[in-house]
Amino acid sequence: MIRSGIHPVLEALRAGSPLDRVVVARGAGGARIQEIVDACREAKIPVRFEPREALDRLAKGSVHQGVVAIGAERAYQSLDDILGMDMLVLLDGVEDPHNLGAIARSAHAAGAGGLVLPERRAASVTDTVTKSAAGALEYLPLVRVKNLGNTIEALKQADYWIYGVDERGTVDHWDADWQQPSAIVLGAEGHGLHRLVREKCDYLLRIPMAGQVASLNVSVAAGVVLFDWRRKRAGGGK
Amino acid sequence: MIRSGIHPVLEALRAGSPLDRVVVARGAGGARIQEIVDACREAKIPVRFEPREALDRLAKGSVHQGVVAIGAERAYQSLDDILGMDMLVLLDGVEDPHNLGAIARSAHAAGAGGLVLPERRAASVTDTVTKSAAGALEYLPLVRVKNLGNTIEALKQADYWIYGVDERGTVDHWDADWQQPSAIVLGAEGHGLHRLVREKCDYLLRIPMAGQVASLNVSVAAGVVLFDWRRKRAGGGK
Repeated sequence: MIRSGIHPVLEALRAGSPLDRVVVARGAGGARIQEIVDACREAKIPVRFEPREALDRLAKGSVHQGVVAIGAERAYQSLDDILGMDMLVLLDGVEDPHNLGAIARSAHAAGAGGLVLPERRAASVTDTVTKSAAGALEYLPLVRVKNLGNTIEALKQADYWIYGVDERGTVDHWDADWQQPSAIVLGAEGHGLHRLVREKCDYLLRIPMAGQVASLNVSVAAGVVLFDWRRKRAGGGK
Repeated sequence: MIRSGIHPVLEALRAGSPLDRVVVARGAGGARIQEIVDACREAKIPVRFEPREALDRLAKGSVHQGVVAIGAERAYQSLDDILGMDMLVLLDGVEDPHNLGAIARSAHAAGAGGLVLPERRAASVTDTVTKSAAGALEYLPLVRVKNLGNTIEALKQADYWIYGVDERGTVDHWDADWQQPSAIVLGAEGHGLHRLVREKCDYLLRIPMAGQVASLNVSVAAGVVLFDWRRKRAGGGK
């Protein structure tokens, strides 16, 4: 797994994520690069200095700012690992890597215990996703599942309530009481939830909107709903 | 001003935005293109059929799906035009076009009466911004100002309360009471509000966060705060 750029590499080091080595461009300098080199020494992670072109190749076109970390493939948790968490986020086909990253960032910041992705019809966790997640993916457990419908059934068995977020929803999101362990399901950009997933939800939440647009960007919609969960859990903002 | 792609062109037509002409790629077809051609006839907007390469040039690399609309330059309102609106959004240096578009979309959907941008240090309203706004910029009044500090002073004179959103904020966003006309100020990605702007705010709101990341994506943060305003105004979700 490749992380390119100062922030993503620093986040991985801070989180103690397993790295095989860190590659720094010859001639790259500055306090942040030095911070990375020092942290690698501390953690006994090999640092190699290579020509900038080698980093360009490793980063595959991503902006790398003179530093690339090479680590083991992303580890996924199993659903069992995250059962018992108060709130989980499930993605039903979110494909845009920036949206996936931003949702992971919001989910972690709101207090989600894990992010569940279907194996198919979802963006995989690329360098771009990691960047958009701004460090959150170093901490947030990720679970990949073959069939989101089966996962929802398993969560129901484990006493989760399933909240779908969909333009066709019938409950204003701010009226959800979030009393039970909650699984929040978000659909693909422009399409919403798939019918089979939608039908399995206990509640379909909609974000009440003014104006002439029908929907929000999916990562914004996720943030709005996730922080309503957080507000209610914190007892804030009556 | 160029709008490329089926959705942006349809949104402009639906909103009655002034268009000089619409260019359709030769050989392009389908129900949505036909809908555009019909709407142009209805509105007496000339339609021209040109080779796809001509559209590629017009769209400057944006995905155009066989249709590009050419219209007058974006019209801006003056601050006076939007005074009296219950809620305004001010951007202090948001540069990323996707974020600017997503914020415009959220602002319109939450019920903002206008979006205020500084002339410098802000993304201009390009085709990309228009796309990310998903139609909102056909409706949401835009105001460009030379100096955001002066604008904030003018808004205070007009009885607005100024709410900055900043990691260093001292009030949880969900505790804002939004009783007065409100101006919500958002800072640049990664930097937050400029000091001079920050110091002029009546309240600095922070979004209470769990986990290891320090901030949300700026368009997500905007959505979270804007929809808290909307929730309180609607009397929802105690």
